[in-house]
Amino acid sequence: MKTVVKNIGLLATPLGNKARRGKEQGRISLVPNTYIVACDGYIAAVGGSNATFAGAVDDATRIIDAQGALVTPGLVDCHTHLVFSGWRQRELPLKLQGLSYLDILRQGGGILYTVNRTRQATLAQLMESGRRSLDIMLAHGTTTCEVKSGYGLNLEDEIKSLRAIGELNKIHPLDLVPTFMGAHAIPNEYRHRKSDYVKLICEAMIPAVAGQNLAEFCDVFCEDGVFTVDESRAILECGARHGLLPKIHADEITASGGAGLAGELQAVSAEHLIHADDKGLVMMAQNGTIAVLLPGTSFYLGESFARAGKMIELNLPVAVATDFNPGSCPTESLQLPMNIACLKYRLTPAEVLTAVTLNAAAAIHRADAIGSIEPGKQADLVIWNAADLEYIFYHWGINLVRSVVKRGKPVSLAKI
Amino acid sequence: MKTVVKNIGLLATPLGNKARRGKEQGRISLVPNTYIVACDGYIAAVGGSNATFAGAVDDATRIIDAQGALVTPGLVDCHTHLVFSGWRQRELPLKLQGLSYLDILRQGGGILYTVNRTRQATLAQLMESGRRSLDIMLAHGTTTCEVKSGYGLNLEDEIKSLRAIGELNKIHPLDLVPTFMGAHAIPNEYRHRKSDYVKLICEAMIPAVAGQNLAEFCDVFCEDGVFTVDESRAILECGARHGLLPKIHADEITASGGAGLAGELQAVSAEHLIHADDKGLVMMAQNGTIAVLLPGTSFYLGESFARAGKMIELNLPVAVATDFNPGSCPTESLQLPMNIACLKYRLTPAEVLTAVTLNAAAAIHRADAIGSIEPGKQADLVIWNAADLEYIFYHWGINLVRSVVKRGKPVSLAKI
Ligand SMILES: [Zn+2]
Ligand SMILES: [Zn+2]
Repeated sequence: MKTVVKNIGLLATPLGNKARRGKEQGRISLVPNTYIVACDGYIAAVGGSNATFAGAVDDATRIIDAQGALVTPGLVDCHTHLVFSGWRQRELPLKLQGLSYLDILRQGGGILYTVNRTRQATLAQLMESGRRSLDIMLAHGTTTCEVKSGYGLNLEDEIKSLRAIGELNKIHPLDLVPTFMGAHAIPNEYRHRKSDYVKLICEAMIPAVAGQNLAEFCDVFCEDGVFTVDESRAILECGARHGLLPKIHADEITASGGAGLAGELQAVSAEHLIHADDKGLVMMAQNGTIAVLLPGTSFYLGESFARAGKMIELNLPVAVATDFNPGSCPTESLQLPMNIACLKYRLTPAEVLTAVTLNAAAAIHRADAIGSIEPGKQADLVIWNAADLEYIFYHWGINLVRSVVKRGKPVSLAKI
Repeated sequence: MKTVVKNIGLLATPLGNKARRGKEQGRISLVPNTYIVACDGYIAAVGGSNATFAGAVDDATRIIDAQGALVTPGLVDCHTHLVFSGWRQRELPLKLQGLSYLDILRQGGGILYTVNRTRQATLAQLMESGRRSLDIMLAHGTTTCEVKSGYGLNLEDEIKSLRAIGELNKIHPLDLVPTFMGAHAIPNEYRHRKSDYVKLICEAMIPAVAGQNLAEFCDVFCEDGVFTVDESRAILECGARHGLLPKIHADEITASGGAGLAGELQAVSAEHLIHADDKGLVMMAQNGTIAVLLPGTSFYLGESFARAGKMIELNLPVAVATDFNPGSCPTESLQLPMNIACLKYRLTPAEVLTAVTLNAAAAIHRADAIGSIEPGKQADLVIWNAADLEYIFYHWGINLVRSVVKRGKPVSLAKI
């Protein structure tokens, strides 16, 4: 089936099939007064003037009128933890009293509360709450997201979480990309024997996950008091031997050497990077690792902000994601992280657009299929309540998505 | 006509007919499993158990089912500049290069761009863009807002702006409260003779505005490089003689003495107060002035955050508002400022709820009519996609309003 999106006031998109780095990150294509033709879910042509596509339209063509609006690629959220049970609003008063994430964790709260609730939940319950979050994401412009397990922390419940991701991918218009993250925290029952838990991950979980094709990536929370650099290396090397590509939560709370490890392992991406030193960032740049920055988490936790400008200067491709999770960043929308990336990282609107489309796609190995508006890519589009690119980084605090096209089809957006 | 809101899971509201201060600011009423009866737009009764209201329902009663949700008073936005023409997204790149608000102002950009566009706009055009913003506010839970003029900066266009506010109040479900703010900036044509502009405000604008009943309050931007303490005093005293109650934009960018002046003049409220010193705050507390804090502006401009905790300690009633305007805080939603008030001021959810309901109502002299859910007050309610109060300060970045009741009637909310 053919779809034409006409009357696009401004088409803004990065170009290419791989992550953009350095000065290239902010060089995007801005085409006024144009249109897009999609066939069977893929982009077939991107216009010239509105006049020229008339010949391409037949009776069966679906016409979408953008009414002069800004159109961008569908947003790609390359870092979420959306499959869980156990929201944690009750921790807000503790946070307001000044307790840190690690303080709350040590009290058996924090992530371990969500782990308990996730273990108790059925597959159907995890899917139901995941589906609600996906509806919200789609309504805010996200058309593809990565999802990590990591609230099961035992073989059975990690598998259950990854199954929920797989099933949601089948039933929801949004595309989901699964990551195994058994090394998200140390479960309570292994508190005094972490090495046994690392062994369980390597000898039981990774083979089972890979054997059932439940994940594409393996991620580790490499941090003081969680997994050391050596433990992270062991887990990620084991994952790689089983075909799971490495990602690392690196240098979020302290400088723990995660960025350097990401470079050493040629990880697809390293996440957070708030305290990463120049040496680690250079290692990443030399090895093709993408920096996935999570400005919503920095803001929500009152952390510092990652040195995004420095990363771009060091020729690192920068992606931006929500980190959606019930502890450190309870939001499904990429729009606020996009605003914060401008205001606090001082990235330009064009650099942030690349960060949430093409570079985010590259961070989940999808840069050949999504993340830009070019012939051959999936027709995943956002039509904005905006006429120019600056506006969506300026008029903040409200949802500026007017409509979403997924694989060439307009999707009906839930009123949240 | 009678309306019953049933199946309220949790009713959260401050109580009383005046601003709450000190420890009282966080003492709110939390009633589980209750209902509200409204007659002809006013609250008639607030339940007890769900069983007892059955007798009060007749065939003509409108039933609204809250389905177990959190219900709060409608939000009151006591500080906005929503009637204008001239969004300023094109300044975002300048901001990202590090230019300050006063830098951009000195370049003839900033507020003066909006002034030019507002002068060119017709009354109908101002109303149309104002109406769109009001629809967005209502969809985000605001049921009453204050609106300041101040983008006309001459007699004719200040009057036009205040007329737009008055007309919008007639046609829109949201209630608008008008404030005259001819002293918002110094117009370009008076750049070198500010005293003549002060004279124009006092001798022409204020008498005309008051004579035509176009405003209830008079506000001044008291700041280094804008209006001095002496000029602000002259304008506000003149306003008061004409029946316009004083408000002051005080100590936002530098410590200019605005808080002390607010106390001296027994102003209804002082706004921003980021750099207000203890002496000024004590003056305000002793004279019944309300502190209207604007955390969205602090965040958007990268300013410091006002010392909200100190203000509460000094027995000042604290209100929180959007400051919605096209320069320093382009958002209609109070929800993000509410989140930021928790995260950055470290106020509790209960303190912030009071700040955006009863204390905000007091800041516009409406505490007898709105701002809490009690018999005799207007039936202005928000039904949230939440079951407890903490949740709306936790699950951020999305609109959590499920539905809004204005004067006892459910209002249909625009999809933005
Ligand atoms: Zn994460
Ligand atoms: Zn203001």
